[in-house]
Amino acid sequence: MLELTSMIKRMKTRRSDRLVDMARFLLEHPRQLISLSHFAERYESAKSSISEDLAIIKRTFADRGTGRLETVPGAAGGARFVPTMSKEEAAEFVEDIRAMVSDETRVLPGGYVYLSDLLGRPDILRQAGRLITTQYVNEEIDAVMTAATKGIPLAQAVAEQLNVPFVIVRDDAKVTEGPMVSVNYLTGSSKRVEKMALSRRSLKPGARVLIVDDFMKAGGTIQGMQTLVREFDGEVVGTAVFAEGRSTVRLLEKFTSLLHVETNLSSGQPIAVQAGNYEEEIFN
Amino acid sequence: MLELTSMIKRMKTRRSDRLVDMARFLLEHPRQLISLSHFAERYESAKSSISEDLAIIKRTFADRGTGRLETVPGAAGGARFVPTMSKEEAAEFVEDIRAMVSDETRVLPGGYVYLSDLLGRPDILRQAGRLITTQYVNEEIDAVMTAATKGIPLAQAVAEQLNVPFVIVRDDAKVTEGPMVSVNYLTGSSKRVEKMALSRRSLKPGARVLIVDDFMKAGGTIQGMQTLVREFDGEVVGTAVFAEGRSTVRLLEKFTSLLHVETNLSSGQPIAVQAGNYEEEIFN
Repeated sequence: MLELTSMIKRMKTRRSDRLVDMARFLLEHPRQLISLSHFAERYESAKSSISEDLAIIKRTFADRGTGRLETVPGAAGGARFVPTMSKEEAAEFVEDIRAMVSDETRVLPGGYVYLSDLLGRPDILRQAGRLITTQYVNEEIDAVMTAATKGIPLAQAVAEQLNVPFVIVRDDAKVTEGPMVSVNYLTGSSKRVEKMALSRRSLKPGARVLIVDDFMKAGGTIQGMQTLVREFDGEVVGTAVFAEGRSTVRLLEKFTSLLHVETNLSSGQPIAVQAGNYEEEIFN
Repeated sequence: MLELTSMIKRMKTRRSDRLVDMARFLLEHPRQLISLSHFAERYESAKSSISEDLAIIKRTFADRGTGRLETVPGAAGGARFVPTMSKEEAAEFVEDIRAMVSDETRVLPGGYVYLSDLLGRPDILRQAGRLITTQYVNEEIDAVMTAATKGIPLAQAVAEQLNVPFVIVRDDAKVTEGPMVSVNYLTGSSKRVEKMALSRRSLKPGARVLIVDDFMKAGGTIQGMQTLVREFDGEVVGTAVFAEGRSTVRLLEKFTSLLHVETNLSSGQPIAVQAGNYEEEIFN
């Protein structure tokens, strides 16, 4: 009887241990199919036990709004964790950042808005990344592209949730990244012709690319990146920004913004911030 | 009897659910003390059950090398997850990246080395961040500082593991971040005087700052950042880079590199890459 109790205890311990470690492993490898064999070897456990564990994790992830655990049945099967955010959690998060951006001291000359503090906070970036990728749960994406400098943090956060590389387009001359592909583009606001470039070896030809940036004013930078993707024979899957400042009709397809900021303002004037179009784009 | 069975089943379900969700929550809030009350309310469970759960998670995190779960006992207590990497895992990781960097096509004119592909991979960044922060498990850090553009990804990865904001120092004139604090610095390689600047509102006075960059050649940029930290009345806690190219004696205290790259090379020559000084800095 004592032996039986200690055996049951050990079995429970192993399940607890597996649940904690499998949850961690799946969370750290989003959108990647992990085979049952991988887990069975790691924990020296039967695949049937692993399947039961996955069922528990799947239910918890669903109940707690962490994301979707897709399980592929059979001995050759496995599990893939796809992070998602619920409509309710998204509404709460966007309202939080809306309130933080609604601060007139953020308005800078030229209609720019200071966002670097928010885009330097790992907690905000993680949530923004999870929300943006919720739109692409059923799409293959090979890479995230952004423009230096201020787009990088959000692009990295999105790439983490997608578990794909991110590439950085630059406009300065002193880049030291070897052979580059460059394109010209028209800045939407000042109507100047500018140049942006990406290292030849950053992006594989034919890649499906999600464009991410911090702020879209007139869309010139984003149109430049679209041209660049085509130069690599790639395809733009969509575009997402933290905030957009445009008030007229958008020209971009599959464009998602978390916030909309009224930027026809001088420094010090009250700032008008609303939710962007994320709800209709992501949750419809 | 049936009722009892179903009650036991429900209790087990709740423990499994708690373990999975608590592990996720702790992993997403590194170095933050989470109170027992927080978990007790979230799961509508007794604090004694939560304490047992935490003991299980603590053991699994320790056994699997995920990190340290510090538990503060008592009703007012809680738990703090501190990510760490073991010496063995670090050696494996550094050998992996060493092999990837040892590719002569990465050498660019001027002794630069192309690293952007590696520093654009979320999996590599997560591990590098975890390794770097292992050195600072017992130190308070308020912010991570880096220089645009190429230092940003690693700085963000380190900041995520520390759960603190990161700030980006820039050298271009067309920054739109409001009032800036700027300093001059001498580039180590070309001996020119350059200027770098940080938005006044990015960093609180007195902050304890960890400096992170992708590559250190002669150290000019890093010395510039140290000067900048002092301009904000802050304190430099340490400096960490992905790779260093210097072969002579370092002038910086508390400086950690993951890789050492011999850069006195012309394009196309074989490249010599070794482990940096991380082992003596982090594991001694």
